[in-house]
Amino acid sequence: MAERLIGAIEAGGTKFVLALAREDGTLLEQARIETRTPDHCFPEVADFFRQTAATHGPIAGFGVASFGPIDIDPASPSYGTFTTTPKPGWAGARFQDVLGAFGAPVVVDTDVNGAALGEWLQGAGQGCNTLAYTTVGTGIGTGVVRLGKPLMGFSHYESGHITPPHDRSLDPFAGSCPYHGDCLEGLAAGPAIEKRWGQSLSQLGSPPEKVELIASYIAHLAASLVLLHMPDRLIFGGGVMKAPGLLQAVRRLTEQKLGGYVRAPQLDPGLEQYIVAPGLGDLAGITGAIELGRIAADQ
Amino acid sequence: MAERLIGAIEAGGTKFVLALAREDGTLLEQARIETRTPDHCFPEVADFFRQTAATHGPIAGFGVASFGPIDIDPASPSYGTFTTTPKPGWAGARFQDVLGAFGAPVVVDTDVNGAALGEWLQGAGQGCNTLAYTTVGTGIGTGVVRLGKPLMGFSHYESGHITPPHDRSLDPFAGSCPYHGDCLEGLAAGPAIEKRWGQSLSQLGSPPEKVELIASYIAHLAASLVLLHMPDRLIFGGGVMKAPGLLQAVRRLTEQKLGGYVRAPQLDPGLEQYIVAPGLGDLAGITGAIELGRIAADQ
Repeated sequence: MAERLIGAIEAGGTKFVLALAREDGTLLEQARIETRTPDHCFPEVADFFRQTAATHGPIAGFGVASFGPIDIDPASPSYGTFTTTPKPGWAGARFQDVLGAFGAPVVVDTDVNGAALGEWLQGAGQGCNTLAYTTVGTGIGTGVVRLGKPLMGFSHYESGHITPPHDRSLDPFAGSCPYHGDCLEGLAAGPAIEKRWGQSLSQLGSPPEKVELIASYIAHLAASLVLLHMPDRLIFGGGVMKAPGLLQAVRRLTEQKLGGYVRAPQLDPGLEQYIVAPGLGDLAGITGAIELGRIAADQ
Repeated sequence: MAERLIGAIEAGGTKFVLALAREDGTLLEQARIETRTPDHCFPEVADFFRQTAATHGPIAGFGVASFGPIDIDPASPSYGTFTTTPKPGWAGARFQDVLGAFGAPVVVDTDVNGAALGEWLQGAGQGCNTLAYTTVGTGIGTGVVRLGKPLMGFSHYESGHITPPHDRSLDPFAGSCPYHGDCLEGLAAGPAIEKRWGQSLSQLGSPPEKVELIASYIAHLAASLVLLHMPDRLIFGGGVMKAPGLLQAVRRLTEQKLGGYVRAPQLDPGLEQYIVAPGLGDLAGITGAIELGRIAADQ
């Protein structure tokens, strides 16, 4: 029996990656389109899948790993619909509106849940029962995969908005989150760093005391994830994490914050095996989206 | 067919509740014993189940909801074994050592996971897909039940050790946690309150400014649970929560911390339906332990 074909979308804030793949993950076709409004994007998405399906055959399932906030509850009437996003045109847009025409089941999840799933399958999270993938970039978000399935409650997690201790005598910056001021995203995401210092950590030359400050906020998330999810591994990706020395500082400060309280073989001394960079780099998201499409095809 | 019989233990730091029940939850026999060392407790546990089984019939499964830290991973060779507890005699003790003689399967989970399960089944968590139950007493811990199963990673959660913002100009108390100083448990558990002020909140007459301070720490956990688990409801129990006005202050400060960012029908204005007291009171733990025993009997 020929392998089924999977349609996959990694929907990011600046670009969409579109892929047609075999269900074993082999890429057959790939394209990138700019994230404009749904009026522009959705016809391009439809064209891509129409053309590739004409070449390769019918699509058995679609997987979407998307920016948010977006409804990812399959039991919800608005499943797959963007909710409160400030991105012009996207609030109320729904992936099923463009993919429904293909008559195949659609699974929609968040970008970080998709990346977590991709890393769990083929990247730095292989072999983990519980894996947390965090991106620190334009925003901050975490996806937690447990035994091959992304976890959620009534909605996807919003780890970027937890509140780390913020000592204003060390860091007088008030924070840039429009909702919370100095939540994690307001202190440590890319835009917060640029608002505070005018440039990114890398552009600033990654000075140790600035790296240490940002690492302390990210380590607060890392420690909170340990205490509230006990993952087998924490992966930290995203543009901010590329600053030299940052991942190392996050390891050191997380170990310090945990204070030896949680003891397990997973938490190696120095946390070098525990807190790691993504294994798939920029491919994590589309790899996860293909897996979501495979799950859809099985429905 | 007669209903199967379930043996259940709620193992607390000061007392054990033992129960023989029908699998529908009907209690047939119940006893309380003091938590001394396993050398004292385990023979009393064996006697209780031997005698009640002689009267009512053979036991089909055992459920244990226990204090910890304890290994709750069924795949682990030390499943059911206390790990690093400072309680004399308990490190290395294992529930299967006393229950194994009855030849029935045993499921061991934490006290808070048991209480979460009990509240989800018959208490204030009925109808929730995802429920978080937190106790604020001698210690602080949270169990999260998702679709009838307690969640875990490589171990049970340790929510008491997350770090809330701590403004020392408002609260000069350094915190009482031997591992972290001013983690949540070090700031807001019963012993921390008594160390700071000499008495419990209730004994102090629950003065509003002291209630507000303790509530702010507990609200940090509530907001973190929302952002990292998105539960349909948060239940707060335990001795500290009985202080008049505390639950109300936790609601108000949690809503303030979330800042309107998370919007969902679950989060009602004022959070009166969202943050609630336990529905089963002191029966949550043994109710959950019976359910764990029913799960064991199905294995």
